[in-house]
Amino acid sequence: MDDELYRESLALHRKFRGKLAVRSKVPLRTMHDLALAYTPGVAAVCREIRRDPARAYDYTMKANTVAIVTDGTAVLGLGNIGPSAAIPVMEGKAILFSEFAGIDAVPICFEGSPADIVEGVRKIATVFGGINLEDIAAPNCFEVEEALGDLGIPVMHDDQHGTAIVVLAALMNAARVTGRNFDDLTIAVSGAGAAGYAIVRLLRCLGMEGSSCNPVREIIVADTRGIIHRGRSDLLQNTHKYILAHETNTENRQGTLADAMREADVFIGVSAGGIVTEPMVQAMAQDPIVFALANPVPEIMPDAAERVGAAVVGTGRSDYPNQINNVLAFPGVFRGALDARATVINDAMKLAAARALAGFVTRPTRERILPSILDKRVTKEVAEAVYEAAVASGAGRRV
Amino acid sequence: MDDELYRESLALHRKFRGKLAVRSKVPLRTMHDLALAYTPGVAAVCREIRRDPARAYDYTMKANTVAIVTDGTAVLGLGNIGPSAAIPVMEGKAILFSEFAGIDAVPICFEGSPADIVEGVRKIATVFGGINLEDIAAPNCFEVEEALGDLGIPVMHDDQHGTAIVVLAALMNAARVTGRNFDDLTIAVSGAGAAGYAIVRLLRCLGMEGSSCNPVREIIVADTRGIIHRGRSDLLQNTHKYILAHETNTENRQGTLADAMREADVFIGVSAGGIVTEPMVQAMAQDPIVFALANPVPEIMPDAAERVGAAVVGTGRSDYPNQINNVLAFPGVFRGALDARATVINDAMKLAAARALAGFVTRPTRERILPSILDKRVTKEVAEAVYEAAVASGAGRRV
Repeated sequence: MDDELYRESLALHRKFRGKLAVRSKVPLRTMHDLALAYTPGVAAVCREIRRDPARAYDYTMKANTVAIVTDGTAVLGLGNIGPSAAIPVMEGKAILFSEFAGIDAVPICFEGSPADIVEGVRKIATVFGGINLEDIAAPNCFEVEEALGDLGIPVMHDDQHGTAIVVLAALMNAARVTGRNFDDLTIAVSGAGAAGYAIVRLLRCLGMEGSSCNPVREIIVADTRGIIHRGRSDLLQNTHKYILAHETNTENRQGTLADAMREADVFIGVSAGGIVTEPMVQAMAQDPIVFALANPVPEIMPDAAERVGAAVVGTGRSDYPNQINNVLAFPGVFRGALDARATVINDAMKLAAARALAGFVTRPTRERILPSILDKRVTKEVAEAVYEAAVASGAGRRV
Repeated sequence: MDDELYRESLALHRKFRGKLAVRSKVPLRTMHDLALAYTPGVAAVCREIRRDPARAYDYTMKANTVAIVTDGTAVLGLGNIGPSAAIPVMEGKAILFSEFAGIDAVPICFEGSPADIVEGVRKIATVFGGINLEDIAAPNCFEVEEALGDLGIPVMHDDQHGTAIVVLAALMNAARVTGRNFDDLTIAVSGAGAAGYAIVRLLRCLGMEGSSCNPVREIIVADTRGIIHRGRSDLLQNTHKYILAHETNTENRQGTLADAMREADVFIGVSAGGIVTEPMVQAMAQDPIVFALANPVPEIMPDAAERVGAAVVGTGRSDYPNQINNVLAFPGVFRGALDARATVINDAMKLAAARALAGFVTRPTRERILPSILDKRVTKEVAEAVYEAAVASGAGRRV
């Protein structure tokens, strides 16, 4: 089945030699067309931007173009395959940007260190209105994103924040379906990489000023060494795990992932296929919520989780209900950010995106906590919410 | 007249917010489409390229994508306007690549020094099959192009070599029209910047091994300080003028541009508007060839040159006969180079391009030494010639 899909995908890529086309939006048939789009007419446009660089947003590709930046160190489930082998994924991302949000996206695959990426992005940012960081391994992804925070255009590592937004939206609706208050939830997270860290961070943001709901009751994160707690000796080597240890696990519990899951209302897996067993789900609270997002093999298969009582199950897969997929978030997030000419994508904008996404499903059920990833109206709703949040938070403005 | 054109150009750019669109070549309507173009199907493509990086040419955008790289230091006639104000020109170039050669081209506008450009291009070259350097001021443009010579994909500074190819083609046909042998020509060149240097270099290449014609009899180059000769004290500060002094002006003449033009068969101006007077043309050999390529105001206007006896006149302008414009060369040169997966664009390929372009006009006249820049069949002819020259010279291969 997968072999057949792989063969078909290879044939498709070979036939089209990649997936991206760069085309003209303006006519180029007559000498007059050329004189307007190129020389001599274009000189007037150059002079306008020379006078006021902000006019690049009015007259050039900048207003609608996002660079998809990677070093190929954490691609899909394939790991560190390098910048060249990452191209097909970056092209895939670019066509999703185009198809869902009408955004022109350009893959930029870096050869080099995280510092090279930071320096490189600074030097080539001129033509771009936003930067989507993609498939950069933790903890480098944090370093790169933080270092680019002052770039003046929105920079977002999608594996972190896109994932966190969709997980939060799914969790909001799953809580409704199972009759829980969001602020009563206890949550076990498996995985403390890019996605795990960003999910915890966004959940913690729910309690911040101006937010309309409280943070959850408790979050416990486990990585391959077990529960992250304040006594672990490896934390000083990893800033982000250090922060997790201090921002989660209020009772400073120790133990394995199974210990973290015991009595938890929610399991969020952003780790590795097959590491959760049926007894581990059985030991959770009644009617637990299980998001097993490892790809392509989830932490536990949906039918197994349901067999032992899971009330709502989500995965990253399209062949089960409740597909938790970034494409529900990133096109709308960047659309809204670009439209507001936001200088950053802040937490308020991410929370607004999550709420809009959750709100899109007016009557969630256990088999439908999120819209279909093919429903392109989602992008518009998310974009509008992000736009308004950008304006309200001062990150952007009504253009 | 120009004001009206400028207004229209500004309105066009504002309406479309730039000129470039990035779109999908593959369908994205169903879950199956997504599974093939993105995850999970795309993983098979990544693994193929991981195994053999050369497969990126079969399966990704690389085979058909060119980066248009600038720092905005020498844009049109506008000079050093910086990377942001250069965007409209780079987008214009990109749509010409698309429209004439079906090449996907992406503007990359660098903030930084020539060394930054070199280092930056090396780090982001992964997704590109070629690099078109554009509007980088001399002498930095030489340094950047030379430093990138070992990149493994074709790198060409179009302001140098695109111009040189079209000028050489125009000169071949102008010589025919005026009944001259190419190897008898004496040529005065005004301007020793990017274009001037490349024109002389390509003319000199005509005599190289394997070439079917001889170099011209004499070339004399003048810059703002007059004729470049071996006694000039400023040559040691400028490698390329040093080379010009030793490769041209065999009698080591001194003097002004007027002195350089006296008795010359050909004038090639790649310098500044209005600097050639009627008496200077009158002092040339009988039936002289005058290419006054400064833009938008030529070194001498065509009607003035013709009034004092010029037999063939070419300019960069579309409102006079014999428009000498790079668009006749660069789309075909890159098309041929990409199709042969050439690792460089060498002199043999440039000469082949010039010959193909000249040969496209089967019966040249004084008003038609080059095809119309709107004639898109030109690209195909040039591409085929460049492809064959790439294969024959070992720079590329039959793919």
